[in-house]
Amino acid sequence: MSFAREMLDAAPGQIDLDLDDLTAAIEACANCSQTCTSCVDSSLAEEDVGTMVDSIAFCDDCADVCTATERLLSRPLHADRGVLHRLLRACVRECTVCAEECEKHAAHHRHHAICARVCRACAKACSDLLEDEAFAELQKLAGG
Amino acid sequence: MSFAREMLDAAPGQIDLDLDDLTAAIEACANCSQTCTSCVDSSLAEEDVGTMVDSIAFCDDCADVCTATERLLSRPLHADRGVLHRLLRACVRECTVCAEECEKHAAHHRHHAICARVCRACAKACSDLLEDEAFAELQKLAGG
Amino acid sequence: MSFAREMLDAAPGQIDLDLDDLTAAIEACANCSQTCTSCVDSSLAEEDVGTMVDSIAFCDDCADVCTATERLLSRPLHADRGVLHRLLRACVRECTVCAEECEKHAAHHRHHAICARVCRACAKACSDLLEDEAFAELQKLAGG
Amino acid sequence: MSFAREMLDAAPGQIDLDLDDLTAAIEACANCSQTCTSCVDSSLAEEDVGTMVDSIAFCDDCADVCTATERLLSRPLHADRGVLHRLLRACVRECTVCAEECEKHAAHHRHHAICARVCRACAKACSDLLEDEAFAELQKLAGG
Repeated sequence: MSFAREMLDAAPGQIDLDLDDLTAAIEACANCSQTCTSCVDSSLAEEDVGTMVDSIAFCDDCADVCTATERLLSRPLHADRGVLHRLLRACVRECTVCAEECEKHAAHHRHHAICARVCRACAKACSDLLEDEAFAELQKLAGG
Repeated sequence: MSFAREMLDAAPGQIDLDLDDLTAAIEACANCSQTCTSCVDSSLAEEDVGTMVDSIAFCDDCADVCTATERLLSRPLHADRGVLHRLLRACVRECTVCAEECEKHAAHHRHHAICARVCRACAKACSDLLEDEAFAELQKLAGG
Repeated sequence: MSFAREMLDAAPGQIDLDLDDLTAAIEACANCSQTCTSCVDSSLAEEDVGTMVDSIAFCDDCADVCTATERLLSRPLHADRGVLHRLLRACVRECTVCAEECEKHAAHHRHHAICARVCRACAKACSDLLEDEAFAELQKLAGG
Repeated sequence: MSFAREMLDAAPGQIDLDLDDLTAAIEACANCSQTCTSCVDSSLAEEDVGTMVDSIAFCDDCADVCTATERLLSRPLHADRGVLHRLLRACVRECTVCAEECEKHAAHHRHHAICARVCRACAKACSDLLEDEAFAELQKLAGG
C-alpha cells in the first residue's frame, strides 16, 4: 500500500487532476518500474536468455520511463501540464510495447506473464489520466 | 499493493535472502522514494518554505538513494552482496537523517509527518534486511 | 568528455539515427540533468529561496526527464522509436519551461544563468535529433 | 565537457570538499552511468549474449548506483556526509565488480573494453574523493 493518496490529500494547494486517477497512475508507474526491473533480473537467469533480449531491453526502458513519470506525477502542484501530457503518452506507448514483448514469453515464464499484466495496467492507468479534463486541449491537439 | 513478492516467487533461481525481508525492503524503498518526492512538491508550496530547505534537499537525496536501492534489491539473482550491503547502509542513514529533518515540521504540515513516518519505516526495513544471514560477515567487518 | 560516441561506434549493429545528433543529444541530456540537480542545491541555499520555488520544482522535473531520455537514447539498438519520439518531445518542452523559469533569476544568481543556458542547449539538441529522418513520419503525425 | 565545476564555483556557500576531486567524481559517475547503459544495449545485440548475463546485470546495477551517487554529489551544500561516505563506498565496489566482469569480454567486444576502463576510472575518482579531509573520520571508522 502506497502513501501517494495520503500525501496528495495533505498537499497545500489545489490540484487540477482527479486525485483517484492521479493516485492510480502514480501507483501503476511505481509497480511497473519495479516489476520490469525484476523481470530483467529473472530473464538474465533463464537458460534461453538469447530469445528474450528484446524483452530485457524494453523492460530496462520501461523501468526508466515509469520512474520518471511517477516522479513528475508526484509533483502535481508544480509540474508543467504540457510535459506531463507528453510524458504520459511516452509511458503509455512504452508500457504497451513492453507488454507485447513480454507476452511472447508468458507461456513459458511466469515472471513475463506478471510483467506483461503490470505493464498493461500501467498503460491503462496513464491512458485514463490522459482523459482528465486538464489534458483535454492537449489531447485534441495531439489527435487523441 | 506491489508485485515484488509475486515476482520473487517466479524467479528462476535460489535467492540467499529472506524473501519476506527482501520484499519488505523493496516496498519500503518504493514508498519512501515516492513520499519524499511528493513531500518536496508540497514543501515548495508552503508559505514558510524558507524554513524547510534542509527537508527539501534531504527528501531529494532520499528519493534518489531509495530509487537506486529499490532497483538493486529488485535484481537479487545477480546483485553483488558487498554493493547491496553498502547501499543498504547508505539508505538507512539517508532515511534516518531525512526523517529527523521532516519531524521538525511534522506539527505544522501533515505531509512532513507522513514523510517522516515513511522514512522511519524504510530505515527499519533496510536495517532488518541487513540482519539477514547473507550479510552477517559484512556486518561484522563494518562494526555492526 | 563523455564516451557516448566511442560506445556508439563500438555497437554491434546498425543505428538508424545520425550518430552526431544522437551523441549530442545524449551529452546534452547528461549535462542538463547534472546542472539542474546542482541548481536546486544552490537555490536552496539562497536567502531569497521563496522567490524561486518554481525554478526548484522545474529543475527537479527536468533532471528526471533528462535522465530518462539520456538512458533511452543510450539504448539505440533496441529502444522503440515511437517512445523515443514522445520522450524527446517531453524533454524539449521540459527544458524550455525550465530555461524560461531559471532565466528570471539569471541576473541575480550565476547558477541560474548557467542552468538556463544548459537547458536551452538540451532543448536544441533534442529538437535537432527529432529532425532526423527516423522520426519524419512521427513528426508529421504530431504536427511538427 | 560538463558544467559541474562552473556550477560548483557559482554555489552560494562553502563546500568542505576539494572541488577538483568533487568535480572529477561527478563527471566520472556521469560517464560511468552512460557507458554502462550503452554497454547493456550492445551486449543484448551480441550473438553470444548468453555468456555475458553477469556483465549485463552488473552494468544495470552500476548505472543506477552511479546515477544516485552523481546526484547526491551534485547537492554538496546539503548532502549528509555520512550518506555520501557510504554511497561512495558502494559506488567504488560496484564499479570495481562491474569492471572485472566486463574485462572478461574486453578481448572480443570493444564496448566491454571501453566500459571496463570507464568503470575503473569511476572507482578511482570516488576513491580519491573518499581520501578527502571531510571523510577522514568516517574512513577511519570504516577501517580505511
